[in-house]
Amino acid sequence: MIKVGVVGGTGYTGVELLRLLAQHPEVELKAITSRGEAGLPVADMFPSLRRRVDLKFVDPQSADLGNCDVVFFATPNGIAMKQAAELVAAGVKVIDLAADFRISDVAEWQKWYGMEHACPELVAEAVYGLPEVNRAAVRQARVVANPGCYPTAVQLGFLPLVEAGVIELDSLVADTKSGVSGAGRKAETHILFSESADNFQAYGVAGHRHLPEIRQGLSRFAGGAPVGLTFVPHLTPMIRGIHATLYGRLKKDVKDVDLQALFEERFAGEAFVDVMPKGSHPSTRSVRSANMCRIAVHRPQGGDVVVVLSVIDNLVKGAAGQAVQNMNILFDLPETTGLSQIPVMP
Amino acid sequence: MIKVGVVGGTGYTGVELLRLLAQHPEVELKAITSRGEAGLPVADMFPSLRRRVDLKFVDPQSADLGNCDVVFFATPNGIAMKQAAELVAAGVKVIDLAADFRISDVAEWQKWYGMEHACPELVAEAVYGLPEVNRAAVRQARVVANPGCYPTAVQLGFLPLVEAGVIELDSLVADTKSGVSGAGRKAETHILFSESADNFQAYGVAGHRHLPEIRQGLSRFAGGAPVGLTFVPHLTPMIRGIHATLYGRLKKDVKDVDLQALFEERFAGEAFVDVMPKGSHPSTRSVRSANMCRIAVHRPQGGDVVVVLSVIDNLVKGAAGQAVQNMNILFDLPETTGLSQIPVMP
Amino acid sequence: MIKVGVVGGTGYTGVELLRLLAQHPEVELKAITSRGEAGLPVADMFPSLRRRVDLKFVDPQSADLGNCDVVFFATPNGIAMKQAAELVAAGVKVIDLAADFRISDVAEWQKWYGMEHACPELVAEAVYGLPEVNRAAVRQARVVANPGCYPTAVQLGFLPLVEAGVIELDSLVADTKSGVSGAGRKAETHILFSESADNFQAYGVAGHRHLPEIRQGLSRFAGGAPVGLTFVPHLTPMIRGIHATLYGRLKKDVKDVDLQALFEERFAGEAFVDVMPKGSHPSTRSVRSANMCRIAVHRPQGGDVVVVLSVIDNLVKGAAGQAVQNMNILFDLPETTGLSQIPVMP
Amino acid sequence: MIKVGVVGGTGYTGVELLRLLAQHPEVELKAITSRGEAGLPVADMFPSLRRRVDLKFVDPQSADLGNCDVVFFATPNGIAMKQAAELVAAGVKVIDLAADFRISDVAEWQKWYGMEHACPELVAEAVYGLPEVNRAAVRQARVVANPGCYPTAVQLGFLPLVEAGVIELDSLVADTKSGVSGAGRKAETHILFSESADNFQAYGVAGHRHLPEIRQGLSRFAGGAPVGLTFVPHLTPMIRGIHATLYGRLKKDVKDVDLQALFEERFAGEAFVDVMPKGSHPSTRSVRSANMCRIAVHRPQGGDVVVVLSVIDNLVKGAAGQAVQNMNILFDLPETTGLSQIPVMP
Repeated sequence: MIKVGVVGGTGYTGVELLRLLAQHPEVELKAITSRGEAGLPVADMFPSLRRRVDLKFVDPQSADLGNCDVVFFATPNGIAMKQAAELVAAGVKVIDLAADFRISDVAEWQKWYGMEHACPELVAEAVYGLPEVNRAAVRQARVVANPGCYPTAVQLGFLPLVEAGVIELDSLVADTKSGVSGAGRKAETHILFSESADNFQAYGVAGHRHLPEIRQGLSRFAGGAPVGLTFVPHLTPMIRGIHATLYGRLKKDVKDVDLQALFEERFAGEAFVDVMPKGSHPSTRSVRSANMCRIAVHRPQGGDVVVVLSVIDNLVKGAAGQAVQNMNILFDLPETTGLSQIPVMP
Repeated sequence: MIKVGVVGGTGYTGVELLRLLAQHPEVELKAITSRGEAGLPVADMFPSLRRRVDLKFVDPQSADLGNCDVVFFATPNGIAMKQAAELVAAGVKVIDLAADFRISDVAEWQKWYGMEHACPELVAEAVYGLPEVNRAAVRQARVVANPGCYPTAVQLGFLPLVEAGVIELDSLVADTKSGVSGAGRKAETHILFSESADNFQAYGVAGHRHLPEIRQGLSRFAGGAPVGLTFVPHLTPMIRGIHATLYGRLKKDVKDVDLQALFEERFAGEAFVDVMPKGSHPSTRSVRSANMCRIAVHRPQGGDVVVVLSVIDNLVKGAAGQAVQNMNILFDLPETTGLSQIPVMP
Repeated sequence: MIKVGVVGGTGYTGVELLRLLAQHPEVELKAITSRGEAGLPVADMFPSLRRRVDLKFVDPQSADLGNCDVVFFATPNGIAMKQAAELVAAGVKVIDLAADFRISDVAEWQKWYGMEHACPELVAEAVYGLPEVNRAAVRQARVVANPGCYPTAVQLGFLPLVEAGVIELDSLVADTKSGVSGAGRKAETHILFSESADNFQAYGVAGHRHLPEIRQGLSRFAGGAPVGLTFVPHLTPMIRGIHATLYGRLKKDVKDVDLQALFEERFAGEAFVDVMPKGSHPSTRSVRSANMCRIAVHRPQGGDVVVVLSVIDNLVKGAAGQAVQNMNILFDLPETTGLSQIPVMP
Repeated sequence: MIKVGVVGGTGYTGVELLRLLAQHPEVELKAITSRGEAGLPVADMFPSLRRRVDLKFVDPQSADLGNCDVVFFATPNGIAMKQAAELVAAGVKVIDLAADFRISDVAEWQKWYGMEHACPELVAEAVYGLPEVNRAAVRQARVVANPGCYPTAVQLGFLPLVEAGVIELDSLVADTKSGVSGAGRKAETHILFSESADNFQAYGVAGHRHLPEIRQGLSRFAGGAPVGLTFVPHLTPMIRGIHATLYGRLKKDVKDVDLQALFEERFAGEAFVDVMPKGSHPSTRSVRSANMCRIAVHRPQGGDVVVVLSVIDNLVKGAAGQAVQNMNILFDLPETTGLSQIPVMP
């Protein structure tokens, strides 16, 4: 059994991790920390976990994380970077669901995240945990930077096109829509029910923190070539789900490429990426509560614009599920272990 | 492995059954019938089942249901009563998720359901499949009448009070609220998103078909005494979930009863009924997608009115999950087999 | 033109007041106060008011409320009681949308609201502003206590039955459901979208502040007789709307009363109470954004239980609209002035 | 008073027209037709109209539309084209809320709408009723083709950029999101609450009927130049509202254009187009139930991509409100007559 600690269990990625870990056949949950809720039984805060998670929140100070095999950070940005080094030194694997280790360029990270990085040396070593791209490196990692939710949906959607070099890289558009749980479990006015229900709104058009992360990923797919990307996120009145609508322009000399085949071949054998039949419109509910990305590729009116539709559950393939997938890789388990829940529909 | 057939797989209880059965370790899905969709892969209609259910819908005529061990009817009322006898004769267990075998009094059934009953003899033999009351009888049954969604939430909530004889039976009130999936997957105007979102409305105040079913159950709990019940259902803008708010008046001579203890003792050992701590307000989302009924009992201001709050997922403990629970009993499996999904929250 | 001041314009009742007052033909908005947002244009906080409300929030200290004809308090409980006396002394009418002047029994108020009352003498003089009951008194008032949202729906629904003396008063039940805007525009976790969407839950079963207010009202309708009421509020995933489902038992000697006629006669001529045809199920959306209460009365299966369904928009007839209705009465305007918006449907 | 007839009053654009017309000070509603509901009081189908609309639906045959001053068609596509000629001949103005007269190229129309056009001669004469572009022509029209909902939001958003010639026309992207009421009040499975709540999905990526309408409009703004547009609509779980996110690339030689000023100047004086301050993210709820288009223009990271955010209420500025605006123009009323409702928020 893998001994698991979770730092920061009171947010949505935290409780989703607990849901998945509590059902994982190879996991023994050892500790869940929360500064503010120490002593409270986890199931008192989240009644959905009654009878399934018996632990109480413990204070980070008194949690014996050094005896875990792996520690997940489901914390705000800036926490993991302060604690990871000590854990790594103790031989504990670290999977950070926040952004601390996602961006290799530390200066760029500091610009977007507005703080000084506490542990640049681990940034250099950390592996970006998008298994469909980085599986082999994850297996050897000591620190896994679990990708952001938007970056997961957008990168998987663009991946076959960019790797194959069939689209122009200077004018990509990612128009993305997220359910409200993506904004976290924070007492803020704009995500109140009465504010975000029956409403649709863009945000962060001037610049969103996931932009450099996506740009870095796409550029890597392109062998380091620069990428021009316009990224516009929107808040949509649903709890879970991300829908990325991606636009790219085919290069002039590749206009007879079979896009459907390109996608199917790239993701052949992937347990958690499902290329839908030609002409499909994947729905976010078709992946609700499951570790799955469904993708459809279109070429409207046979023109030179490619439209990719990519959906995930932001809390699963976009966060906790992908983190467990990375844990499975780290510990040489079949990647699907504990992750075979069927989406809940309707 | 239990060989399973499903008649009527295109509604919400049908697809929910498929979700649960496809994850059940002792089940082999043999056939899913649909008159209208024969030939269509199930996963084409329900993309959430892609890669998990490979069957196509088959015409009821050509389905070899006689070789199944058990057949679930997830059909409209009036179908199972025409086909059950032949299956029973062939040694196949029948679990009807519709209402055909729920009401012992055939004349009463015919009045409420507006049709003649095709198989009164099986009504007499059928067992009402509320395991927390009828477990032993279910084990021996050939035909299980799976309870309705409202009746499950209401009966479980009133059960300890009525069995213990502590409330007056002449003035019970069940004010119940259901998510829209309870109305089924039918193309009807009143359950359109634009009609039922951001709206709340009662229906069927003059008389709802679940009234006689609940009354029959409560009367049985009371050893056959007549029960006066006012039952008002409401449609609430959520997909899944039933919340029953139940009102009863304590008998004069039992006013010092410990209600919390009464409930905890009655449901001690039940895997799928969770008596919440004193003062709780169970939420429907705390049982979303799981086979669970959570109950809290209150006595406002210490008066003589008891208020019980009882929540289920109408498609799971109120339909497909309870049906699988009954199947587990029929085949001597642990009752929780294949039913240990943790609720999806948020 | 009536010179109007609004104290506390940043909550939902505040912005709703502004919507109604900005369209009112006899109103001149003079000042809107907010301690926290002084200096901010109102329309910057609420873009729906762009081009329609040009005022900025002003600090309560610097607002010249003494020169207004009427001041509305759309503030938390406990504010109006500190400021009303000075305004009244200056000849300004006060309409309090909070609870400070609703309960005549000051000790009872202090028990439920957990603070000492700053101005008991005005409580004695204040008029409870339910116009369908108290119209004449409102006309003469200096201070109007605008009723709570639940109390409006519940009192109007029970009113004809209690006034006519046809139901037992010892066992009334009010099972009520509110949209989330009823909880206010406060940054609290439990009313986040991801917490209250796709969910249904009771709250305050042990005792809710609207209970004594409703009990006081019903008792007055009954000529001072005591009233036994069980009141259970629920949160339902919609923005606006209250649905009250009311249960009472007919007295033995009045079982041939024509309930439909009783309701129609009681509310004949009322502009803002609509008795629906027999057998109706009023929907909250049928009153969305309008100052209207729609009521239907049922007697299921011809028994002795009366079920009344009463719906309002909690922010309009349950708050800001009723406040404007009271203002119209205070200033001898036709009661419907500025209040004839047709409900927005769908 | 303008004598008004409405053909097809049972859909969402129909009932929204009734809401607006019933509050319009210069309108006398003469007839509302419905083939299926003839004889039914309108307010029985739409209780929100109780006490405000006294008419019954009449059969189209027996409605005396020839005596109206103007007739609105709130019908499915293909109806108005069969009846408009006779009305026009009788001197009645026709405003078609469907698509029959929107596309000048009849062959193109027939390709997208899959039927033969019954009245091509009126297509030639009909005026496309986007007042912000075509006000003068509307004033003289006998037949007004009221624009589609997506086309209104998209054209108004691109208008200043295309008219001023500052963006490349070969690579425009319109990523649009609609509330479910945009799909109409039809009993279809995919727009059931349980299907479209808590879900997000694209549709019609291969080609949507609003594409040629938008392309025609943009091309006209560009003096007839061809336009390359990718148009992807999505269904979002809200009742009302359209959010268009528009992408264009600035021409090389105009990169120092002041986009904010360009938009503000183009729409100066427009009552129903509100250019938001720089950096804004307009929300659909800020225009809910009002005849208003709010627009913000962005240039992320100062690059050469322009992002325009344009929101309307699909049933008001996207349908019924714009139709009333056109009626006001036709009858020389101030354009805002009867259209000054403040958006309902929250």
